[in-house]
Amino acid sequence: MKTHPFDEALRLEAAGADQPDTWLGASSPAYWNMVGPFGGTTAATALRAILQHPALLGEPIALTVNYASALTEGPFSITARPVRTNRSTQHWTVALSQPDAAGAMSVLMTATAVTAARRETWSANDTPMPAARFSDAAPRLRSSSAEWTRRYDLRAVRGMIPQVWDGSGQGGDEGSLTQLWVRDDPPRPLDFASLAAMADVFYPRVWLRRATRVPAGTVSITTYFHADSRQLAQTGEGYLLGQARAQAFRNGFFDQTAQLWNEAGTLLATSSQIVYYKE
Amino acid sequence: MKTHPFDEALRLEAAGADQPDTWLGASSPAYWNMVGPFGGTTAATALRAILQHPALLGEPIALTVNYASALTEGPFSITARPVRTNRSTQHWTVALSQPDAAGAMSVLMTATAVTAARRETWSANDTPMPAARFSDAAPRLRSSSAEWTRRYDLRAVRGMIPQVWDGSGQGGDEGSLTQLWVRDDPPRPLDFASLAAMADVFYPRVWLRRATRVPAGTVSITTYFHADSRQLAQTGEGYLLGQARAQAFRNGFFDQTAQLWNEAGTLLATSSQIVYYKE
Repeated sequence: MKTHPFDEALRLEAAGADQPDTWLGASSPAYWNMVGPFGGTTAATALRAILQHPALLGEPIALTVNYASALTEGPFSITARPVRTNRSTQHWTVALSQPDAAGAMSVLMTATAVTAARRETWSANDTPMPAARFSDAAPRLRSSSAEWTRRYDLRAVRGMIPQVWDGSGQGGDEGSLTQLWVRDDPPRPLDFASLAAMADVFYPRVWLRRATRVPAGTVSITTYFHADSRQLAQTGEGYLLGQARAQAFRNGFFDQTAQLWNEAGTLLATSSQIVYYKE
Repeated sequence: MKTHPFDEALRLEAAGADQPDTWLGASSPAYWNMVGPFGGTTAATALRAILQHPALLGEPIALTVNYASALTEGPFSITARPVRTNRSTQHWTVALSQPDAAGAMSVLMTATAVTAARRETWSANDTPMPAARFSDAAPRLRSSSAEWTRRYDLRAVRGMIPQVWDGSGQGGDEGSLTQLWVRDDPPRPLDFASLAAMADVFYPRVWLRRATRVPAGTVSITTYFHADSRQLAQTGEGYLLGQARAQAFRNGFFDQTAQLWNEAGTLLATSSQIVYYKE
């Protein structure tokens, strides 16, 4: 069976017995964005390094990824360290490096994560899925010029990328709201790494809000995993409903909050990110 | 003039010329919580270490703090490293340690942060302040048994801590919603460190949602700073309106999103956190 492009992109090999926390990989042309790879893939790589660490305790609860600089094409080194292991939680720090022009290793991404052995408790979903039923008839979004968008099957619900860049952006409650269905293309059973990537699948809110295509890029993203592996398995290759909206745009940075539900209406993950923009 | 207890709590001294990124401090009894100090103070300490670093570029944009274990009373060591400095952004990693029972240094908190030199751009506040006018007549919240709550002047708007623990928690949109006015007591001009602390001033959402007082503690908090120092100065010693709500409670962890506005209605910061709870 052919390896899925997402697993291909996330392939990590142990750096060697003398560096037990370090893995070697390469940035993936299949998920290329404008400059550097799709940030969702980079976040997923940070999580993958943790998930294949032999000291791993439990499943992902929280992941914060900071994009310090764009990855270039080619190999990278990623280190994931369990800095604290408690009875039921574990804290991780992650750093990804590539050689710079002079050959010295340079940090391009840092991350922190918490994993935990979950126990069954009282639970409640306080954010019902918006009324939106998936239909195969929903138009599939045309791919942008960015290669990574071809790796996702995205179906419009509302707040799609403007077709005309005329500066006519709207305010109000719907000003920066996007809802869409998303799954991997080709389909792939959902796991924590692909969920982490999908939390970053929305195009910049400032484009929707202003109908003006200014340079923009995620600086830091935080994702909380509400689902455990059983709920991911129940989701399988189904579509997720993703929702994103900004709370504030201020002098070069805006934030984005996001939610991801499966078709059954289970809130799998919530996420927030801060995004640089120009002008 | 007497030093404000918050500045007392955040006092850091350089560890020495051979450790240029490291500072020494001590956990503050004035901000003590049930076990260990108020997490807001710990987050503010991480930011303070960055802000007094001689290599600092710009002002805070994003801060993620992971609580790996409760601090004990007494001295700690905190290291803040600028791992990447770009033209207008800078990336930081932070770790706080205390000696464990055997005398070995043990990591109790990790953090990452982004600082940046902001430029004036198109801006928009997409999250208007809820209709709530500050009135001195609003009842000041009675302090809980936790010492840190006495360091804040908190005024109820809605969603206050249940007076009766009868398990009668409500669902729906208001199920986990709290709004309150907050400022330091005694009053203190707002700065980035105190704003970071105030983002963590809400009691656990699960208590409100269930009217059941289960053990709960923040595992990780992320705060985005939309205000620059000019807007903080405009806020001065005024009250902030804080709003918090959960999106999901699932098997031992719930999330909380929060917003903080000044009295003029400027959204100063947005925040999210993931919180451990029992039962």
